[in-house]
Amino acid sequence: MNKRTKIYEGKAKILYEGPEAGTIIQFFKDDATAFNNQKHDVLEGKGALNNRFSEYFMQRIDLIGVPTHFIKRINMREQLVKKVEIIPVEVIVRNVVAGSMAKRLGLEEGMALPRSIVEFSYKDDALGDPLVSDEHVTALGWATPPELDDMIAMTLRINDFLTGLFAGIGIKLVDFKLEFGRLVEDGLMRIVLADEISPDNCRLWDIETNEKLDKDRFRRDLGGVMEAYREVAKRLGLLQEENSEIRDHKGPVLVSDNKD
Amino acid sequence: MNKRTKIYEGKAKILYEGPEAGTIIQFFKDDATAFNNQKHDVLEGKGALNNRFSEYFMQRIDLIGVPTHFIKRINMREQLVKKVEIIPVEVIVRNVVAGSMAKRLGLEEGMALPRSIVEFSYKDDALGDPLVSDEHVTALGWATPPELDDMIAMTLRINDFLTGLFAGIGIKLVDFKLEFGRLVEDGLMRIVLADEISPDNCRLWDIETNEKLDKDRFRRDLGGVMEAYREVAKRLGLLQEENSEIRDHKGPVLVSDNKD
Repeated sequence: MNKRTKIYEGKAKILYEGPEAGTIIQFFKDDATAFNNQKHDVLEGKGALNNRFSEYFMQRIDLIGVPTHFIKRINMREQLVKKVEIIPVEVIVRNVVAGSMAKRLGLEEGMALPRSIVEFSYKDDALGDPLVSDEHVTALGWATPPELDDMIAMTLRINDFLTGLFAGIGIKLVDFKLEFGRLVEDGLMRIVLADEISPDNCRLWDIETNEKLDKDRFRRDLGGVMEAYREVAKRLGLLQEENSEIRDHKGPVLVSDNKD
Repeated sequence: MNKRTKIYEGKAKILYEGPEAGTIIQFFKDDATAFNNQKHDVLEGKGALNNRFSEYFMQRIDLIGVPTHFIKRINMREQLVKKVEIIPVEVIVRNVVAGSMAKRLGLEEGMALPRSIVEFSYKDDALGDPLVSDEHVTALGWATPPELDDMIAMTLRINDFLTGLFAGIGIKLVDFKLEFGRLVEDGLMRIVLADEISPDNCRLWDIETNEKLDKDRFRRDLGGVMEAYREVAKRLGLLQEENSEIRDHKGPVLVSDNKD
């Protein structure tokens, strides 16, 4: 691997400068963290799987015309994306009560919400990504009102789309987190979906059994984290049925639809 | 089967009065028609499959909170639905150019549209379900402006949801037709999704090969109509893998998720 400039290292990804101006390489690490880094582990194969998941979802979201930062997957652990200015707001959609929302509001986990709820968190590890309202987002200048409107509209469309996509493979999309960025192209600035979409930042429950197929298995010490991620990948057709011959090569066998 | 009152017989369905006031039984026929009845055939098993498809999609659409007329499937060919006053407008969503749109506008079939387009047809067989604009719909009183707004908003959400659902099983949702009705419950009138959703009124192409998996196989004499419908059902998990033992019973083997 040739020398390259590290721009940023986060909990689950490293960003390097890309080969051309305006591009970035996202490297997916195997690290898993929870509760703002208080819990940490290395899950072999997670990086490669999340790289593939994110490629898949970003490409599929193109079907509904929502713009993303994604360009192409480069290899097992890396993908090329457009360089954007990340808006420091995590956008969370909740279809079913779970996690911090259950705790914060004293609601029972698993309760279907009468309608989907969009929440915002201020992206700041030192502060523990605190919940904020749309008022904070616009008054503190993290996003302008039109930018926030765009983010919400795209988020609701992505929610409908992903709810359908997961329903088709027998999975309930309980909640998920998105990040957006400002992209300047041809002198025009617009908001695009950035970061990643993977079981690291979605809650995914089997639609029949409510079995958790996401990072909550790690957060809550339920075991079988990678088995759950692989189950999701298998249902999406991203992973060949396991067989011992292939497994001898170690790690998941990814099915690529990258034609180049 | 006990005597019951036929309310209406259409090309692919018969409607009977339901067991309770405000309910209707939809009976799915095996008849296939095209080009406003100029072409007709009987496809064994189509009715049962479309009954199951429509149950599946109407139930799944509940995940995004869009209201439908569906109550429950009663048996292989019949489902119980709420009695609604059908709005005489077919709402068509197009994601990719195909069929009448390609012909009417001289566009190449298969061209992805820059954004999804919603079209309206006036439901009138004698007139050949002519294309109309939103102006006709509201000016001629088929729907009020707020009703039409509701229909369009629900249609766009259903489009995002179904596009995701089909993408998850490797199918491109090219276009589809919806019908809506007025439902009065607790003294309040609202618009709900009615009629059916099945490969009879969707264009579904395999995402890799563009193979047609819908009623165009019948319209265009491509053969393998029921095989295509069964392929869609299989990918949705509605149909068990065929095996000779089960096939001896004739017709498709449907997997029911009807718990009652």
